[in-house]
Amino acid sequence: MEFIPSELIRKKRSGGQHSREELRFLIQEYSRDKLPDYQMAAWLMAVCFRGMTMDETAWLTMEMRDSGEVIDLSPLGMTVDKHSTGGLGDKTSLILAPLVAAAGVPVPMMAGRGLAHTGGTLDKLESIRGFNVKLTLQQFKKQIESIGTAIMGQTLEICPADRKLYALRDVTGTVDSLPLICGSIMSKKLAEGSGALVLDIKFGSGAFMKTLADAEKLALALKEIGDRAGKKVVALITRMDEPLGRFIGNSLEVQECVDIMDGKTRAGIGKDYQDTIDLTLELAAHMIFLGGKAKSVADGKKIAQQLLTGGGAKQKFLELCQHQGGALSRGLPKAAHSKDVVAEKDGFLQYIDVEKLGTACIFLGAGRRFQTDQLDLSAGVEVMWANGASIRKGDAIFKMHYNSGCKIDDAITEIRKSYSLVTQASTPTPLIAKVLI
Amino acid sequence: MEFIPSELIRKKRSGGQHSREELRFLIQEYSRDKLPDYQMAAWLMAVCFRGMTMDETAWLTMEMRDSGEVIDLSPLGMTVDKHSTGGLGDKTSLILAPLVAAAGVPVPMMAGRGLAHTGGTLDKLESIRGFNVKLTLQQFKKQIESIGTAIMGQTLEICPADRKLYALRDVTGTVDSLPLICGSIMSKKLAEGSGALVLDIKFGSGAFMKTLADAEKLALALKEIGDRAGKKVVALITRMDEPLGRFIGNSLEVQECVDIMDGKTRAGIGKDYQDTIDLTLELAAHMIFLGGKAKSVADGKKIAQQLLTGGGAKQKFLELCQHQGGALSRGLPKAAHSKDVVAEKDGFLQYIDVEKLGTACIFLGAGRRFQTDQLDLSAGVEVMWANGASIRKGDAIFKMHYNSGCKIDDAITEIRKSYSLVTQASTPTPLIAKVLI
Repeated sequence: MEFIPSELIRKKRSGGQHSREELRFLIQEYSRDKLPDYQMAAWLMAVCFRGMTMDETAWLTMEMRDSGEVIDLSPLGMTVDKHSTGGLGDKTSLILAPLVAAAGVPVPMMAGRGLAHTGGTLDKLESIRGFNVKLTLQQFKKQIESIGTAIMGQTLEICPADRKLYALRDVTGTVDSLPLICGSIMSKKLAEGSGALVLDIKFGSGAFMKTLADAEKLALALKEIGDRAGKKVVALITRMDEPLGRFIGNSLEVQECVDIMDGKTRAGIGKDYQDTIDLTLELAAHMIFLGGKAKSVADGKKIAQQLLTGGGAKQKFLELCQHQGGALSRGLPKAAHSKDVVAEKDGFLQYIDVEKLGTACIFLGAGRRFQTDQLDLSAGVEVMWANGASIRKGDAIFKMHYNSGCKIDDAITEIRKSYSLVTQASTPTPLIAKVLI
Repeated sequence: MEFIPSELIRKKRSGGQHSREELRFLIQEYSRDKLPDYQMAAWLMAVCFRGMTMDETAWLTMEMRDSGEVIDLSPLGMTVDKHSTGGLGDKTSLILAPLVAAAGVPVPMMAGRGLAHTGGTLDKLESIRGFNVKLTLQQFKKQIESIGTAIMGQTLEICPADRKLYALRDVTGTVDSLPLICGSIMSKKLAEGSGALVLDIKFGSGAFMKTLADAEKLALALKEIGDRAGKKVVALITRMDEPLGRFIGNSLEVQECVDIMDGKTRAGIGKDYQDTIDLTLELAAHMIFLGGKAKSVADGKKIAQQLLTGGGAKQKFLELCQHQGGALSRGLPKAAHSKDVVAEKDGFLQYIDVEKLGTACIFLGAGRRFQTDQLDLSAGVEVMWANGASIRKGDAIFKMHYNSGCKIDDAITEIRKSYSLVTQASTPTPLIAKVLI
């Protein structure tokens, strides 16, 4: 069907609801480079102001999904994937894939690179020497059949419309829009073809969604789209008002995961790994249950716990590395220098803007500002204390790991903005605020 | 000063106010093709939703003005120009330029081509064989010195930013925005360099602004910008809920103007020229007063009346034609065919959607849908009756003038949508609703 683009833009501008045919036209023409960027940009901004109905949001998502290859993984059985909206120090994917696979649930993980904050799952894996995330779809499927899991980057064939749209949104101030976020997340997850999906929707100062209410709204919309597309979706709404775990940074996070899979719960005095472990187990429990390998979520959690402490997860992780060429035995890259950020007075530690720690990581080389930035995989920030800890003047609150050539002073400036030292410890909020099943 | 475009877009999206430096950056970078269309389109849409303060609107206008040549006409004395927001059958410019010049006020008129409805002033003049609207700025100034007036098209050197922005707005659903409309109108009028300006802001079903309130808002903003730029601006807010005068169409409108300058007040039974005459005299009165050639606006009107009925305006019009190569004596182009649209029942004529008559003119070839469309300068619609006229079934309400090859049936369909025949005549609204001095 043919439509006049400027009329569709005006329709959305004046608060109208698009038909599925109209959305198909917009996405198809844009994918084919027939609808120019400037018309799409105006339409996206109108969507930011007017929003979309649930129907429109679901249709948009399906059209984006269908802009490229839609993978069929059903021959592999009941596969389960996980997606997080992203948070500082969130390294759960690295444990989840082998852990859930060890429980007998195939985990096909298509992951991304990080932008802002630290690297993404792919970057973290690449800090393991030789680890290859550029698999063909054939290799991906074969490895899942063989060892139960594989982790690779999205292929160019998956959701080209999303890639094009995201790049445009990034430079036109139209990233922050619920229906557009839904479309971007779910189109890829639907195209990637897992049987079920567990979502980790973050909220707080270090997350895209700042409030629990906004995160819940997003979670409900994503679940609804999953329902309409016939994919079972469970959403955990989790806190991101302090970094997850002890380490932020690519190889540092891999080390934390290896430690956890080795049964360790801490790397030294101060903050331990407990939040990373808790969140991983909760996500794993749902994945194992959805994959049909547990009688209940509680049962799934027990299985996950055993695999984590009993070495099953680590064993699978080593298999994963071996199959994808990663030589963990050759050691992880380590930064040459470290420097503490010390408390300027006594007080209880309170994180106020976790995003600033992400900016600090960019200055240290651990994160990207632009898609083309090169990462220092060994750099990052070690979080010495959790929210609410009692700190004495002169105590190290953070340890920066870095190599020469990075912007260490800018990093310190940003880190200083991320917390304050207060006279009364605030009540901690629960790590997992809600589970929408 | 350097800014990050996506941050400026987000600022406007979230309701922020731009500084003059930010607006300068946006307009300058866009003019130089350094800011891409897609970022400008997103920003324009954000402006449509968030609006602009008076400060921002004035700054935007000044930056657009300064994107090209700013003409200095002060050596010509106190020059006065007129601008109309456009209405069906509005042909007053053709009389005003010679009339006001005949009163001793130099009139430098830079006019446009029409888009939608009928042609613009330039198209109308070109229906006079040989009339040349492509003057150099040197010729333009010299002719004003010599005979008091000249009419030409805007040169490419005037407001290139407006030309580029308008083309983008046209295809991105962002035409309808008060600050953007203000910027577009006033940037050109300020750059064209007349000493004073009389605005004719139309409202009603045939105008861009549908209500008096909206038209007044626009008028006040345009006046304010004029004030800030040191240009005296008077704004008339006038009715456009029925066509102005008897004729719509390029050569047809020229004929109406020539008739009026010959002292005629009608072309036949039915609708006369009185509204065209009244509006022209009112606009002329203000122009003559602003130009310092009348003691008061009332005095200006008297002078205008004498020049119109006494032949002074016609004399100056012939001089204008002669200087710009137009041979009025060779006759105006006439359409080969005419066809009536007759009343389907008895009733009082009530115009309900004058814009439909504009669409009909496009089907007859008298107007453009796209900038590149070729016009049939002889085609158009003759308006047989004014709003409120008592009509009998079978009476001709409109006479279409056309040549073969046009879409006559589509034109009839549109014309039928422009009026209805009602049982009670509505109270006529005054032609000139308000004058803002």
